[in-house]
Amino acid sequence: MRTEYHQELAELGTSLTQLCDLAATLIGHATRALLDADLELAEQVISDYGRVTALSTTAEERAISLLALQQPVAGDLRSIVSHLQCIGEVERMGALAVHVAKIVRQRHPQHVLPADIADQCAEMGRIAVELANDARTVVASGDPDKAARLREQDDAMDELHEHLLAALLDPGWRHGAGAAVDLALLGRFYERFADHAVEIGRRVVFEATGTLPPEQGIGTY
Amino acid sequence: MRTEYHQELAELGTSLTQLCDLAATLIGHATRALLDADLELAEQVISDYGRVTALSTTAEERAISLLALQQPVAGDLRSIVSHLQCIGEVERMGALAVHVAKIVRQRHPQHVLPADIADQCAEMGRIAVELANDARTVVASGDPDKAARLREQDDAMDELHEHLLAALLDPGWRHGAGAAVDLALLGRFYERFADHAVEIGRRVVFEATGTLPPEQGIGTY
Repeated sequence: MRTEYHQELAELGTSLTQLCDLAATLIGHATRALLDADLELAEQVISDYGRVTALSTTAEERAISLLALQQPVAGDLRSIVSHLQCIGEVERMGALAVHVAKIVRQRHPQHVLPADIADQCAEMGRIAVELANDARTVVASGDPDKAARLREQDDAMDELHEHLLAALLDPGWRHGAGAAVDLALLGRFYERFADHAVEIGRRVVFEATGTLPPEQGIGTY
Repeated sequence: MRTEYHQELAELGTSLTQLCDLAATLIGHATRALLDADLELAEQVISDYGRVTALSTTAEERAISLLALQQPVAGDLRSIVSHLQCIGEVERMGALAVHVAKIVRQRHPQHVLPADIADQCAEMGRIAVELANDARTVVASGDPDKAARLREQDDAMDELHEHLLAALLDPGWRHGAGAAVDLALLGRFYERFADHAVEIGRRVVFEATGTLPPEQGIGTY
């Protein structure tokens, strides 16, 4: 019974790392679709989201059945509760990648990005992929120090996001209101994607130590 | 022991309804601050968020301690897991109200809203308060039919949101890129607020029936 239990617990961990992998892939593809105005790749991101919901539903059911059948305590209980919460976070990361892809699809064959903003978005996309990959590593290793460091990468994302917002709100903005709206939303999607990765880090710290680190700030707005 | 357990479970329910009340109050105040460019009220929303995090931390600890000490099964287990997830949802609702308030603070003494958009925002705010109140009722009653109906109110919010986005993206938009950026973000905040209320409804349906209703769509973008 115990062996089967630890196997189930390990499988729950595997489901969560697979979800992180998927989130990294989706935001990577969505960013490439955004930079290249690639409709096919955007459509692929949108349809791949079905894999996220399928995997997260299975993982959630597995977590609840572990709680019901094995009645874990202490560390194991924290671990399962933490996994349950991380599943929700990473599912949202997938949804945010889809939001990016949907803007690409909506504007196609036009490019969403003015040329002078493309580098900033590429960098936000790069950090997002890195954060999803690091969330995966942290979930797999349970290392609370590495988990806490996700916040530093998020600082880089926040800085890019504020920089982008400042450009959009500058009276010298010369790409029109439509492009500003798209970019405001894109910036928000990348920033939230990063926040969810940080939240996964907080949960892993809780799992390892029994104490939840302080909330992240909730940004300028 | 069982009596104490049911008392703890009831207190967990009370914490969650208090959180819904708080979310309704915050989004109501944030909307009023937005409509009146009321800095004092905006500041109050921002500082009241501390009550949300304090209450949600306590509620989360209570849920985990119930899982640890009482090892509930079947309906009780579903109820606690569902409460745990709803706490996360309603905490985000509070954070979104703060985002609205922060835009008000950032633009003060200017009004964020062009006069011809104020009514739409007032209506989004009204639906948001209604959704938070109805989420509260649903959490308190556990009624799956009423829970499922939250989705219909959310449809009204989605419609307002799409209408707003269409106005911002219209080539005839005449309030400039800055106002468009603020409104794109505001629209997103209200729309997400509503989504979290719907998600609470889904969790209550799960709690009552053991089956999670299908995911909400993830919107145009």
